[in-house]
Amino acid sequence: MPVVSDEELARRRHDIMEKARGCFAEYGYEGATVRRLEKATGKSRGAIFHHFGDKENLFLSIAHEDAERQAAVVAEAGLVEVMRDMLKRPERHEWLATRLEISRKLRTEPDFRARWKEHQQTLDQAVRDRLARNAEEDRMRDDVDLSVLQMFLETVMDGFITRLASGEPTDRLDAVLDVTEDAVRKH
Amino acid sequence: MPVVSDEELARRRHDIMEKARGCFAEYGYEGATVRRLEKATGKSRGAIFHHFGDKENLFLSIAHEDAERQAAVVAEAGLVEVMRDMLKRPERHEWLATRLEISRKLRTEPDFRARWKEHQQTLDQAVRDRLARNAEEDRMRDDVDLSVLQMFLETVMDGFITRLASGEPTDRLDAVLDVTEDAVRKH
Repeated sequence: MPVVSDEELARRRHDIMEKARGCFAEYGYEGATVRRLEKATGKSRGAIFHHFGDKENLFLSIAHEDAERQAAVVAEAGLVEVMRDMLKRPERHEWLATRLEISRKLRTEPDFRARWKEHQQTLDQAVRDRLARNAEEDRMRDDVDLSVLQMFLETVMDGFITRLASGEPTDRLDAVLDVTEDAVRKH
Repeated sequence: MPVVSDEELARRRHDIMEKARGCFAEYGYEGATVRRLEKATGKSRGAIFHHFGDKENLFLSIAHEDAERQAAVVAEAGLVEVMRDMLKRPERHEWLATRLEISRKLRTEPDFRARWKEHQQTLDQAVRDRLARNAEEDRMRDDVDLSVLQMFLETVMDGFITRLASGEPTDRLDAVLDVTEDAVRKH
């Protein structure tokens, strides 16, 4: 058997993830059956699970990629900018719906929840660091605990995802983000 | 056949809705199959659909009941109070998850979306009226359009529902609601 380089392995993993993302976006988490994942990726279940273990892990790996990308935006420009990016990329809205579909699973399956949290840690930490830096530079309001402001921003982001995933009109959402940003800043 | 009074019919409808709500809460929208709805309500599918036409309509009727109840709270005390109520009634959080699960259906099925919107109209209107009244009494900030403030509040509420439905900790959510209320008020 020929030896496969690390780069080649990473490329194969990435290729499966991108195609699987489309499949989850189209059919939802539950609806993306192994058969449909096979069809979407052009790989056998054996090949897919060789790379990812199981469907849950495949899904979490894709969500992890998102979290890393968002963490980079947060570090640079903050969580509100992540939401502005979502507005600019409507082709990703279908994928966002999967975030909502797993809410029941997050609540009722502690193992899944723990794995999800682990995969989202990069993003959580990036938001926390960003807010702490802003606070040091005296740009955050200081009459409310930073942890509350973080939860406020994350709550707005969850609502944002719901609106986009439900196909609600987006024309006033930029203004909604201005209100959001304004609410955490020092005046 | 004995004649059934309107009150008796209403009582039977309500009984089916309450038990079906529990079934949707437990299994989710898709997971609440007709067989499970029969078991939960103790009625045959014939009896259920005699009252509600189909599963979609049964679901929308339950959501409509929520919207009416919430509209009454909005008229009295505003949308933030609806969210405070959600915090006080954790036994309803499971049902809230269904709101997230239908996001894909809302986006991809225009008929379902139209029916959903129709059933939510009471609530939309109550929020609009409440904000207009607050604005007249000079309690709302006036540098941002009321429609933006309404969308901001609704976005926070959607995010709120996501957090509760996902089983996230709720201990700082009261403070998050204070920040939210503060963001739309005149200072």
